[in-house]
Amino acid sequence: MTTTLITNIGELTTNVGVPGDVCGTIHAAAVLIDDDRIAWAGAAADAPSASATVDAGGRAVIPGFVDSHTHLVFGGDRADEFEARMSGTPYAAGGIRRTVAATRAATDAELRERLAGFVAELHGQGTTTFEVKTGYGLTVDDEARLARLAAEVTDEVTFLGAHVLPTEYTDRRDQYVDLVCGEMLAACAPHSRWIDVFCETGAFTSGEARRILDAGKARGLRARVHGNQLGHGEGVRLAVAVDAASVDHCTYLDDEDVAALAASDTVATLLPGVEFSTRQPYPDARRLLDARVTVALASDCNPGSSFTSSMPLMVALAVREMNMTVTEAVWAATAGGARALRRDDIGAIAPGMRADLVLLDAPTRIHLAYRPGVPLVRTVWKDGVVL
Amino acid sequence: MTTTLITNIGELTTNVGVPGDVCGTIHAAAVLIDDDRIAWAGAAADAPSASATVDAGGRAVIPGFVDSHTHLVFGGDRADEFEARMSGTPYAAGGIRRTVAATRAATDAELRERLAGFVAELHGQGTTTFEVKTGYGLTVDDEARLARLAAEVTDEVTFLGAHVLPTEYTDRRDQYVDLVCGEMLAACAPHSRWIDVFCETGAFTSGEARRILDAGKARGLRARVHGNQLGHGEGVRLAVAVDAASVDHCTYLDDEDVAALAASDTVATLLPGVEFSTRQPYPDARRLLDARVTVALASDCNPGSSFTSSMPLMVALAVREMNMTVTEAVWAATAGGARALRRDDIGAIAPGMRADLVLLDAPTRIHLAYRPGVPLVRTVWKDGVVL
Repeated sequence: MTTTLITNIGELTTNVGVPGDVCGTIHAAAVLIDDDRIAWAGAAADAPSASATVDAGGRAVIPGFVDSHTHLVFGGDRADEFEARMSGTPYAAGGIRRTVAATRAATDAELRERLAGFVAELHGQGTTTFEVKTGYGLTVDDEARLARLAAEVTDEVTFLGAHVLPTEYTDRRDQYVDLVCGEMLAACAPHSRWIDVFCETGAFTSGEARRILDAGKARGLRARVHGNQLGHGEGVRLAVAVDAASVDHCTYLDDEDVAALAASDTVATLLPGVEFSTRQPYPDARRLLDARVTVALASDCNPGSSFTSSMPLMVALAVREMNMTVTEAVWAATAGGARALRRDDIGAIAPGMRADLVLLDAPTRIHLAYRPGVPLVRTVWKDGVVL
Repeated sequence: MTTTLITNIGELTTNVGVPGDVCGTIHAAAVLIDDDRIAWAGAAADAPSASATVDAGGRAVIPGFVDSHTHLVFGGDRADEFEARMSGTPYAAGGIRRTVAATRAATDAELRERLAGFVAELHGQGTTTFEVKTGYGLTVDDEARLARLAAEVTDEVTFLGAHVLPTEYTDRRDQYVDLVCGEMLAACAPHSRWIDVFCETGAFTSGEARRILDAGKARGLRARVHGNQLGHGEGVRLAVAVDAASVDHCTYLDDEDVAALAASDTVATLLPGVEFSTRQPYPDARRLLDARVTVALASDCNPGSSFTSSMPLMVALAVREMNMTVTEAVWAATAGGARALRRDDIGAIAPGMRADLVLLDAPTRIHLAYRPGVPLVRTVWKDGVVL
């Protein structure tokens, strides 16, 4: 039996919270890894023996980041659109549809190579679990292909056929919703765990979204929702009504939305990379946290509105721009992401949890926000294996 | 004679500007390195032969970043102060003086190890030239020690004895200024190229600053100034009056300041990491650029107000927060930094320049802002050697 003891940890973030410290901090700590699981965590002075030892050199250890919202299977990029938007130039881009065209044109091998690059990027920045959505195919075959390719790299695949109405269905909305609920869902469900809908003016109505989510649930998929990003809408309340694991964006909320979230098991997932990259107002994280809504942070990595895969940057932005404390932000980027994926085996460092850990090149987790942009991830363990 | 041809460069940023493209972009490009210098740059189809070839795989190449403003020789950190500030908690920290105490208490070996870590961090993020200031010693021996240690890692050492008035001189300002201009300067000048003063309310008056800069110039040092960071003051006009290479911060400017800068050889160096990490308003870069002031970007890496060494993040912040175009921001972080250090051998990719280049893991320089937080630096050449 191989066990590894990571010892001389200056600051261990366990996420086994206590009042006043949701991150469950232990100083001068150690963690015992047994195969792919955490076997023990506590004060280094009390550590059990192990077959191998890693000296953390007084540095900080946190749970691996859980990025519960990405769109990583796509072709092309939209750098020109980003540049034009940042310069204030109106840009007649096809937006999501432009990536759909590039994705449809890409071969499996091309998409697989691209995805492998992103996975390496995620791992290098301390992300040990990530969700990947379809949504750049928008035909039965293309969506099924994206779901299949995504399932090669993660268990957390989300079918997002209802990302945007494809151009060819402009005057036939109902037919597209029928397709998503029928043949497309049937083709994607075998590769997917989740179903998601972009419920927003310009995308899908709450009625359409409800039909799609219900169809997915009938096929055994679980619900998540893109909602309330660009304006106030019914996304949040729909998410709560269908017991979605998460409703993502949450920029425009009324008091009823906040109360509904607080009373539910639906996580509010905030995606500050989007606001950074589109120069839009950030969601009001404090309002949610103060109302005791469970908040997660995710990257939304996609080529249009947030082409960053950096969870450390999400933590820094949450602190700088959304007035989250470092503790709240790190919790949201780890345990919060786990809740948003309804996973109880990740997001904390405690006996029985998966051995997904990040050793930082820093003495505290504060440094994730205090040293923005600096690559601070030194060593990553995923299922007990160093990546 | 060893020559290396970097070929198949998708986008080469030469900084040999032409009207409408200050970055002097060449697509499908190649660069020939001969020993420590650039021997040739142009279209790959026209490239000369070389003894070795590197295939850039269609990626982008830019000049190495020039970080003209850092404070990297210090002990301790102020993570707790950062966390408290971000949480809105008033914090009775000693600020710079706290780092002075930690620095004085550190051994040469400790400071040298820390500095080596920062140098590795800078190189890893594509910075090939960096300035380092003293200023956390504030005694003759401590300042001289910091200048000597800094000179071990860079030619661009700045004597900043006039960083803040040390506590022990609270009631004896003139005596401290005398010390800086006399014994302290004499001890630091042999290790330094530059002299700098923090000319700001709460630090040094413009009269004191002038005395100090003149004393430094009489010793053969060149002037640079910290000015107009926390409020409007005389720092910018003083910098122009003494032909300082750069005046750094430039947040609070009046029209006269802008006109003076535009008519001078003094660069306005903007440090957006400070505004990010202190939640202060960003300087108005557009006003400066539109007035044809030369603008540089630098990190100001220091443990108090901006503990980031990431020039890619400075580019992203300049685009997001200061309305600079990507082209302007990349130029400012490379050629602009070179101007701020009055160097004509770095900051561009052209025959005779030092072979300081960065190969990005991206097809365009736009990606530096489009993919914030993502480590995009793939290979760095410094003086023709891969770091």
